Amino acid sequence: MRLKLTLQYSGHPYGGWQYQPPNGAPLLPSIQGTVVAALNRLMDSHTAVPKDLVGAGRTDAGVHAHGQVAHVDLPEAFAHRPTYSWAEGLNRFLPSTIRCTQALVVPTTFHARYSAVARHYTYKLWVGRQLRPDLLHHAGHAPPLFETSINLPAMQQALASIPVGIATDFTSFRDAECQSKQPVCTLTHLQLTAEGHLITLRLGADHFLHHMVRNLVGTLVQVGMNTREPNLSGLLAARNRTLAGTTFAPDGLCLTEVVYTEA
Amino acid sequence: MRLKLTLQYSGHPYGGWQYQPPNGAPLLPSIQGTVVAALNRLMDSHTAVPKDLVGAGRTDAGVHAHGQVAHVDLPEAFAHRPTYSWAEGLNRFLPSTIRCTQALVVPTTFHARYSAVARHYTYKLWVGRQLRPDLLHHAGHAPPLFETSINLPAMQQALASIPVGIATDFTSFRDAECQSKQPVCTLTHLQLTAEGHLITLRLGADHFLHHMVRNLVGTLVQVGMNTREPNLSGLLAARNRTLAGTTFAPDGLCLTEVVYTEA
Repeated sequence: MRLKLTLQYSGHPYGGWQYQPPNGAPLLPSIQGTVVAALNRLMDSHTAVPKDLVGAGRTDAGVHAHGQVAHVDLPEAFAHRPTYSWAEGLNRFLPSTIRCTQALVVPTTFHARYSAVARHYTYKLWVGRQLRPDLLHHAGHAPPLFETSINLPAMQQALASIPVGIATDFTSFRDAECQSKQPVCTLTHLQLTAEGHLITLRLGADHFLHHMVRNLVGTLVQVGMNTREPNLSGLLAARNRTLAGTTFAPDGLCLTEVVYTEA
Repeated sequence: MRLKLTLQYSGHPYGGWQYQPPNGAPLLPSIQGTVVAALNRLMDSHTAVPKDLVGAGRTDAGVHAHGQVAHVDLPEAFAHRPTYSWAEGLNRFLPSTIRCTQALVVPTTFHARYSAVARHYTYKLWVGRQLRPDLLHHAGHAPPLFETSINLPAMQQALASIPVGIATDFTSFRDAECQSKQPVCTLTHLQLTAEGHLITLRLGADHFLHHMVRNLVGTLVQVGMNTREPNLSGLLAARNRTLAGTTFAPDGLCLTEVVYTEA
């Protein structure tokens, strides 16, 4: 039987989604490893050990999720359990920084990563001098120079120069270690709102490249600091990562939703 | 010279506002003691030590602030310093869970506690089964019984039974250790909004009694769980703390603003 899990987590206590085999250096625990450990504890009267938990997105260290999705295959012996007991039970064994909000039995044709048709992210950016303490670990921080403020109209202008609804080559925002087969993504949603010093960037796309959002944020911050021209068309057309801004902090990034046509 | 400081903090790493002299048992640091220590470090080429830092409200352990106000008296020798350097300097010595957002030189007639004419608080309450990880330490949690949801209309009805704009005796919501001279407060603002599973209670008053908001939240949660009648008029009239709900968690409480007629 295949189980689909919807997960929320705060990323800062973890070394990212992906399980990292310990090889000498002490590492932060992974989300994946922590959820697998909780699954094992939940099934401890059985010998079955879930070999793999496949996540829709391999979020980086420090990146959060409100709607990460993963699937795992369990022995048919567990099919008699009521579905709600998986979410309730997992939460008893998970630390409070990771919650399972839904567990569903799905067809084995469902794949958390390959069946996803769209993903949504938000990036929270604090542009005041001092990061508000309740946003610690939950917002990127771009402090403006003393007595200045960030150029929000220029940032909006920059966003408007990025195509939405059109397949676009995002090589300029793609990390060198990106494992995607090709650099073309279709953004379906791109919006920047500001409330006081808190800027929220909302993005939706069929898929995202490695570090794509954080590289875009690093570039937008340069525009907001007036150190880069607002029109990003030339940067996109150049297809050259070295021309874009630096990868911004993971703290503000959150995988909010993964969309499937079924299940 | 008297300095007025506006402070933001996350309360969960601290044992509350008030400095507690160490007497054997290991305690969490206090906000007050941490700010005084930062002031001392900032002035370390001088012998002056601020003897006292007076806060507008002595927030409990775990309670947060977006707009706590405090005053401190410093030797006149520091009067030449530009005011902004106090906030900027303090933030260099404070942990990132405490920020000084403003420092102002004020007349010595200004008193953070006694000059305050109004105070505002918010209480965030999560009423879903599982607390969203990013709200950890920043919301109280009232999980509903399985497959039920909290009775929001009843909670609104309960709020409507509490007088606003009229001097009211809040003895029923007053902690036994409250140091206020009298139990009468005038609420100026009382509002409950809900967004999904997150309920936000906003309160303003000339002053608040010890644990008043948390005791009110504990009572409102009972109303929401249908274990108490919505009309709280009789409870208020009874002036009996033992008839109200239990003191709810500090996690959701935040001192958002202290209002003064001057400075």
